[in-house]
Amino acid sequence: MSSYTVRFLPDNLETTVQEGENLLQAAARAGIPLKASCGGRGTCGRCRMILKEGEVTQLQKGKLTPEQLAAGYVLACQSIPAGPVVVEVPAESRLAEHRVLLAEERAGEELLPAGFDPLFKKVALELPPPDLEDSRDDAGRLLDTLEKTTGMDDALFNLETLSNLPAVLREGQWRVTASLADGKGYTEIVRVEPGRRAEKYYGLAVDIGTTTVVVELVDLAGGRTVGVKGRYNKQAVYGDDVISRIIYAVETPGGRREMQRAAVDTINELITALTAETGVESKDIHAVVCAGNTTMTHLFLGIDPAYIRMEPYTPAVNSLPPVRAAELGLMVSPGALVHCLPSIASYVGGDIMAGARLIEIDQAEELTLFIDVGTNGEMVLGNKDWLLACACSAGPAFEGGGIRHGMRAMAGAIEHVQIDPRTGEVHYQTVDGAKPLGICGSGLIDLMAVLRDAGIIDRTGQFLSRPELPRLREGDEGPEYVLAWAHESGNEQDITISEADVKNLIRAKGAVFAGIRTMLRMVDLPVEAIERVIVAGGFGRYINIRDAIAIGLFPDLPVERYSYIGNSSLKGARLALLSRRVRDGVEELARKVTYLELSVGNTFMDEFVSALFLPHTDLNLFPSLINAA
Amino acid sequence: MSSYTVRFLPDNLETTVQEGENLLQAAARAGIPLKASCGGRGTCGRCRMILKEGEVTQLQKGKLTPEQLAAGYVLACQSIPAGPVVVEVPAESRLAEHRVLLAEERAGEELLPAGFDPLFKKVALELPPPDLEDSRDDAGRLLDTLEKTTGMDDALFNLETLSNLPAVLREGQWRVTASLADGKGYTEIVRVEPGRRAEKYYGLAVDIGTTTVVVELVDLAGGRTVGVKGRYNKQAVYGDDVISRIIYAVETPGGRREMQRAAVDTINELITALTAETGVESKDIHAVVCAGNTTMTHLFLGIDPAYIRMEPYTPAVNSLPPVRAAELGLMVSPGALVHCLPSIASYVGGDIMAGARLIEIDQAEELTLFIDVGTNGEMVLGNKDWLLACACSAGPAFEGGGIRHGMRAMAGAIEHVQIDPRTGEVHYQTVDGAKPLGICGSGLIDLMAVLRDAGIIDRTGQFLSRPELPRLREGDEGPEYVLAWAHESGNEQDITISEADVKNLIRAKGAVFAGIRTMLRMVDLPVEAIERVIVAGGFGRYINIRDAIAIGLFPDLPVERYSYIGNSSLKGARLALLSRRVRDGVEELARKVTYLELSVGNTFMDEFVSALFLPHTDLNLFPSLINAA
Ligand code: FES
Ligand SMILES: [Mg+2]
Ligand SMILES: [Mg+2]
Repeated sequence: MSSYTVRFLPDNLETTVQEGENLLQAAARAGIPLKASCGGRGTCGRCRMILKEGEVTQLQKGKLTPEQLAAGYVLACQSIPAGPVVVEVPAESRLAEHRVLLAEERAGEELLPAGFDPLFKKVALELPPPDLEDSRDDAGRLLDTLEKTTGMDDALFNLETLSNLPAVLREGQWRVTASLADGKGYTEIVRVEPGRRAEKYYGLAVDIGTTTVVVELVDLAGGRTVGVKGRYNKQAVYGDDVISRIIYAVETPGGRREMQRAAVDTINELITALTAETGVESKDIHAVVCAGNTTMTHLFLGIDPAYIRMEPYTPAVNSLPPVRAAELGLMVSPGALVHCLPSIASYVGGDIMAGARLIEIDQAEELTLFIDVGTNGEMVLGNKDWLLACACSAGPAFEGGGIRHGMRAMAGAIEHVQIDPRTGEVHYQTVDGAKPLGICGSGLIDLMAVLRDAGIIDRTGQFLSRPELPRLREGDEGPEYVLAWAHESGNEQDITISEADVKNLIRAKGAVFAGIRTMLRMVDLPVEAIERVIVAGGFGRYINIRDAIAIGLFPDLPVERYSYIGNSSLKGARLALLSRRVRDGVEELARKVTYLELSVGNTFMDEFVSALFLPHTDLNLFPSLINAA
Repeated sequence: MSSYTVRFLPDNLETTVQEGENLLQAAARAGIPLKASCGGRGTCGRCRMILKEGEVTQLQKGKLTPEQLAAGYVLACQSIPAGPVVVEVPAESRLAEHRVLLAEERAGEELLPAGFDPLFKKVALELPPPDLEDSRDDAGRLLDTLEKTTGMDDALFNLETLSNLPAVLREGQWRVTASLADGKGYTEIVRVEPGRRAEKYYGLAVDIGTTTVVVELVDLAGGRTVGVKGRYNKQAVYGDDVISRIIYAVETPGGRREMQRAAVDTINELITALTAETGVESKDIHAVVCAGNTTMTHLFLGIDPAYIRMEPYTPAVNSLPPVRAAELGLMVSPGALVHCLPSIASYVGGDIMAGARLIEIDQAEELTLFIDVGTNGEMVLGNKDWLLACACSAGPAFEGGGIRHGMRAMAGAIEHVQIDPRTGEVHYQTVDGAKPLGICGSGLIDLMAVLRDAGIIDRTGQFLSRPELPRLREGDEGPEYVLAWAHESGNEQDITISEADVKNLIRAKGAVFAGIRTMLRMVDLPVEAIERVIVAGGFGRYINIRDAIAIGLFPDLPVERYSYIGNSSLKGARLALLSRRVRDGVEELARKVTYLELSVGNTFMDEFVSALFLPHTDLNLFPSLINAA
């Protein structure tokens, strides 16, 4: 079998490919992560690079334009070197860090759960020394003292700790420090050390998002956060969405293992960064709580995700056993137990349960809607009496997916837009004030509302004919509106929004609203019955609620009923790490929620079709807009 | 560092010793197990061999007689080769297999516990296939079906089983076979296989005795025993008794590990023999229950035994967590859980608890004495209302230890003796009818009784002057009685019993009786209150109860109150293997027993001194003997 070298410019990194391997695989090996939204199927066109020297066999040319082809562009995933090659990787093909929603800075104790009882802790114990009247076994003596001191009656020894217990107890002259790890259902006595040990010990809360992974390092002795870091999920090279990842994991030999490796590597890199920054040693990290959607959890643990995407959409497992860090290859104390928060269905995962527990929806008096507008638009509706959840497959439009100039909220993303109805001229604001590169979720919501207000689009999203407006023009794919001209943009391209983009966004917002309405109809309640709406997730913070209502994404409720909770997945994971009761509470909550499969019955489909208008076919659902008009 | 070869005759096996290593270590490495009752301290004289060629440095010459020294005998444990050597290992220095008390043959179901519920089992399950109305996760679906089918609600998955569950369920078209292992407190779903699996699966009951290890291979599907095998414990080369073993384990670098290895190797050899004989594959053995005394359990699991032998005699641990077979190196299915039955104190172990549970002493209406007359004379007294236990350090006399011609019950051991009071002539019976080589426990009990009846010894064990009796003579160490002349014996030596031997035996039987009396005094009950006596252990089967009463070893009760239970340690282990309830019951029983430390207070010492007569200083305790006299 032949093998060839591949050199990547401008990095000047070299790697070797075996016969049949493509440039996407080569780039991953060289440590150059590429965008590959379609997971390497040649359809998204994001992995393009420029062939500088040598020859490749091109399986498909995908979406490359004649100009690009002329300039030597190839799709990395479709190009198999036929000899040594040199390629250049343009900036736009590279996965870049985007604005990551970390846990907010918070004052020390603020978010400490009432029942502070971390999943790992060290407890100082003073045992009564044995004598002939009391010659209990050493292990029994320790367990008795532990129960007297802490009330804990479910502690178990492991063999290693038992093996050397007698010497440790005597060395410490019956004063010892016991390390206790929660094993979900029992407490493991991980270690016993002589004397009173004052060292610090730590835990990790991890939000494993499809796009972004965030790790929070927490001092478990005091409950304080020591550091937080996020980065894109390395699985992104296998596709943008969970479906591409599942297909890769299931259909590629070794794909499941590879996907797991990518998730673990992502977390490990964040751990390395955090430990370097804080001086905490990774061996002192003794407990991990992860929250992720159902697919992310399956892939992280190496569990077969095949049936998540196939009707009737059954996950392999919702409630997960704790797993040893060493078994996963996580760079923390090898014996540390890794807890993943439970899912309730294929598309409502531990991230949502974490958030639902964080806001204590299961204790709420008020009827509460918890909503994470991401790819899937996952929602929980209810209060202390009942709970419903659903996922409405909104698609990635609000995350910039499927929108020609859509992007995530990173430097250069247009995040707020105003349009002068008369001139059609635009005023926008970008993340970090950088030159515009594209438009992100909050910008898209604004844009839809103002395009409608300005009379540029109609209620169905169709572009109106307004030849007097210079920014309105006919593009390759139909009518489009120019947000920024090439000369003012950061990438020398016109930044536009097309009718196709608007229709995509209407479908996305329609799915979310239809999901909310379907749940309400299940319990026969009107929209106004919702007493509070708690918005979570990546771009929620930047949403203009009025605009979101105006386009019919969110229900027409007084804005003061809305609040934003931030990265509730991470926050919930952190709380579970700090409190056994919260961790158990998430499990309990998950058991209580009734999952609504929206593909069953006609309700959702009917609601969806009705919601494909701005804001809705039934304007009575948006009374404040009628009054405003 | 120099090293020399050592050749062993007549085996003609060769090995190499490093400078400083002795011949006992060399022999172990060459696979020639030697007697080493004192654990290599040079005091027992059992490890002797004959130096044929080469030179050794002799640290001590121990008990070797001038004749032996002249014939080239050396103590292996005290001889360090100073160059290449050739040695001959005489038969009497070798550890030989002795009569092992296996589990009795029994008719199929006879000993099946009422609640047959083995610690490992395979259960066929039929799951309702998922649809859109019921898209529970695969794991939850299986757990629900398991609970409906078996009532089991404490089952947990491991990650490996979860990982591939979706494919397995669908391959089996929702009919699967689940392998369930009891984890003490929860049930582990070890494996799920597609379809209905009819294969056999097995478990092991193991009696880890200080001297002998017995392994019983049990078909866990049917509860039937497939095979039983026993052999000497390979730890024997480190000393005969638990004290020598503890010293070796604690004081030799790596000794604890070495001792564990020896125990595991012993069991592995028995497994190999059993699997070879029965055709069962070792990978199909999925659960192991071990019963052993406290020291054996510690050493088998590699737990520090140091404080077992030091006042106040605290074991590291009484109640043990199950351990994976792979962690111990046991040659069964690597994931199999190994359960050790609990001890209650340093000298009352899991073997005794197994027996106590076997006879259901904790459910008994009658006041029951359970007694295992071995080295330690361990006893449990009580009924459903209360339970006491103690160990009386009888010493190994009844096992042949410390008795010049004492031996275990193996071919050639004198096991029954009669003496003509007039002529002092003897009639004996040996195991297997072989030429006599020595005398074992049951023979010693008979002998003491008949020596006393024949007026050869007095009530204190002193030899009377009877010059008319040809078998009574003055030996090297005082008066002795010749049981067999050299010409009729199997080893061309006179087989004798000396006054020192008799005194040793009186101390041993006195300790046992004193233990019984001390327990009775705790609860203020007379000897006659004991309604049944159940005798267990190695030589119990061959004891003549009348003689045991006559010498004051056992209390003077009608013989019909006595029964013999056999190897109750092994039988109890087997029952625990076959019934979760029994296994839990042993733990519960252990928690209920009050342990009596005989070294505390004066009661035991007073009782012991009073019992140093044949049968006792207080003849009122033995009314049947007064009447007979
Ligand atoms: S004298 Fe060598 S082992 Fe006892
Ligand atoms: Mg998320
Ligand atoms: Mg025994």
